[in-house]
Amino acid sequence: MKKSKVRVNSSRRNFLTGSASVAGLAATAAIVPITFATANHKDGSKGLPNFINWKNRDALIIHSDKGIETHRSAIGESIVTPNANVYIRNNMPTMTDAQIGNRKNWKISVSGVKNPKTFTLAQLQKLGHTTIATILQCSGNGRGFFAHKVRGSQWKTGAAACVLWTGVPVKAVVDACGGISSGAVFMTSSGVDHAPTGLDPKKAMVERSVPKKAYKDAILAWEMNGDPLPNSHGGPLRTITPGYFGINNVKHVGKLAFTETESDVKYMKSSYRISPIGKKGSQYPTCWEMPVKSWITRPTDETGTVKAGKVQIVGVAMGGTKKARSVKVSVDGGNSWKKAKFIGPDLGKFAWRQFALETTLSAGTYTLSSKASNGSNTQPELRMENRRGYAHNGWKDHSVKISVV
Amino acid sequence: MKKSKVRVNSSRRNFLTGSASVAGLAATAAIVPITFATANHKDGSKGLPNFINWKNRDALIIHSDKGIETHRSAIGESIVTPNANVYIRNNMPTMTDAQIGNRKNWKISVSGVKNPKTFTLAQLQKLGHTTIATILQCSGNGRGFFAHKVRGSQWKTGAAACVLWTGVPVKAVVDACGGISSGAVFMTSSGVDHAPTGLDPKKAMVERSVPKKAYKDAILAWEMNGDPLPNSHGGPLRTITPGYFGINNVKHVGKLAFTETESDVKYMKSSYRISPIGKKGSQYPTCWEMPVKSWITRPTDETGTVKAGKVQIVGVAMGGTKKARSVKVSVDGGNSWKKAKFIGPDLGKFAWRQFALETTLSAGTYTLSSKASNGSNTQPELRMENRRGYAHNGWKDHSVKISVV
Repeated sequence: MKKSKVRVNSSRRNFLTGSASVAGLAATAAIVPITFATANHKDGSKGLPNFINWKNRDALIIHSDKGIETHRSAIGESIVTPNANVYIRNNMPTMTDAQIGNRKNWKISVSGVKNPKTFTLAQLQKLGHTTIATILQCSGNGRGFFAHKVRGSQWKTGAAACVLWTGVPVKAVVDACGGISSGAVFMTSSGVDHAPTGLDPKKAMVERSVPKKAYKDAILAWEMNGDPLPNSHGGPLRTITPGYFGINNVKHVGKLAFTETESDVKYMKSSYRISPIGKKGSQYPTCWEMPVKSWITRPTDETGTVKAGKVQIVGVAMGGTKKARSVKVSVDGGNSWKKAKFIGPDLGKFAWRQFALETTLSAGTYTLSSKASNGSNTQPELRMENRRGYAHNGWKDHSVKISVV
Repeated sequence: MKKSKVRVNSSRRNFLTGSASVAGLAATAAIVPITFATANHKDGSKGLPNFINWKNRDALIIHSDKGIETHRSAIGESIVTPNANVYIRNNMPTMTDAQIGNRKNWKISVSGVKNPKTFTLAQLQKLGHTTIATILQCSGNGRGFFAHKVRGSQWKTGAAACVLWTGVPVKAVVDACGGISSGAVFMTSSGVDHAPTGLDPKKAMVERSVPKKAYKDAILAWEMNGDPLPNSHGGPLRTITPGYFGINNVKHVGKLAFTETESDVKYMKSSYRISPIGKKGSQYPTCWEMPVKSWITRPTDETGTVKAGKVQIVGVAMGGTKKARSVKVSVDGGNSWKKAKFIGPDLGKFAWRQFALETTLSAGTYTLSSKASNGSNTQPELRMENRRGYAHNGWKDHSVKISVV
């Protein structure tokens, strides 16, 4: 397969980082900061980190070296998010080409099945493939709207993307291993991007368990929007768990196991728990299935002056693990609503739909809101308050104010 | 809208060219060759022309400075072709940023309607938008399989791509102009990329008429796979005529007219006519609707050694102006056929479908063929012989030979 290396790797050195997510573990590892591209952005702000210097800086907001958000206005007119515009949220430093080696020889062990096996990527590719469109969304997308002081990147809407993934269905892998062992309750994916850090796997390994049923839709992906999966997005191989929050789509996956219990690593047991403000612990629910959600992508304060007259209000709507069925739009902060139209192709229940409402606005200020439904659930008005600012789908905070002249 | 300039323009100078397509007209214009990137490809072959130096050289075969093909193996595992892998076929030199000016102010006149108007791109964008997936395919795709000596790029399968386009439906533009004038028979789009050359518009203008009915599906597109439409693909605005050959998807479009007669420029009247070998003339049919077609993308001689055992045979199938309904695959040169499965999302009737057949092959040589049907028509075995090698959809020539060890 002839594909450019440009999209796969940085071909530059990718150092360990001393940022918040691993700072507490730094004692055992050689921590060197990630380098940023020498050139600042044209507006004077920071350039891209070198490990993703192929990304589209204009489309991105840099919160940190491992938290990079897509501008609200860089999503929404087309349906699939170009790779160069897709947000970055890494817990570990992206693996380098040198650490990965020959991509075709990348290994993944499969256990909790009748006949446990280890597959190379080349072997997986002989089991058949498919393409699915899913929403990749960080559990903390919308954290920037919470009123209490929440640690972590202050994402608004842009820790989300709609991506076409290509890979082997987990079902085909399971079939090649004789089926799932009886007693399994979870599908557990383990990343190996912690390995080069030398950090304690219990604290640094991204290992995530999801309910076993998720395996029916899941794939092990090696392509992202038709390009080889970039290292920065978990290449050469990543678990894609449609309908589940980003963290469950484990990058640099080296192990897939059907297990009776949930993983006991930090990223499963204590991180990503939706707990009341001021409380924490593994007794609280983890970030699994995504709720129904939508947001307006234009017009916004990013998209320039809006002139009085006919205005197209457009955005994206996702149903979570069910198809998005309808979207309503309000121009008066939620006092009255009109049904918007879905436009463009339907890429399946795990993708988002584009929506549009044409309306006429005279000069003045407006609060534009959108509210999606998947048939069973409708977006609530308010956020669910929680300690770390996860799973925000309240429509009120996601509203935008515009001035029409 | 914040988007990278990298994908939009070359930001380098794009000169007129002296290549075959305009050589006969060169007397009136200053002809300067297109420059190629200084660096040759790693295999020693020519680098990319500078005006598309952002493309993926590894995915491409360079026939000339305006004829650049996608490798057979660079299509087929995912469904949408990344912009960097999409083929290039230009009749005129790509317009430069300087020639285009402010993209939002790009103008298109609309005539043959009740109320003729001129719209800027910004005004078009207020009429509403949609996204559609279509096959962009050069009329001469497959020319390289013809046995007689045919002038033009010797395309095999890679003058084709599946692309998500975003733009305004022509129907919405027509509505904004009070409807189509009575008596109109054709929708005629005119490019303005000839203008900077100073060449005679009758000979150099890409102006194409298609049957009026095509307007119902057509859009004026400003995005390609979520990026602003690159200049090299006709940015900032291009007519997309779903189901019709590439030439009818006019680049750098400056005029849309509903007309009683076909355009009389060279690119309508004499070029792109499907005539018997040795004959030419405007009495022969022009390249309009695409026929049903498919081809195998792997394994091929490009994809490395095939080991005996289970083999996944995969490819792409398009229905033309109707949905692709089924594909059959043969491993013995067409003596016997098995039905393949469609995989991945259905992006609509104008997109291609991915297909796959799992089979078991022992050591030996095999001729792999595919044959698609759209319900009404099935791919023929043989090409339709014609002077310029257009519209080839015969399955036999598109077969691939592989060795299994």
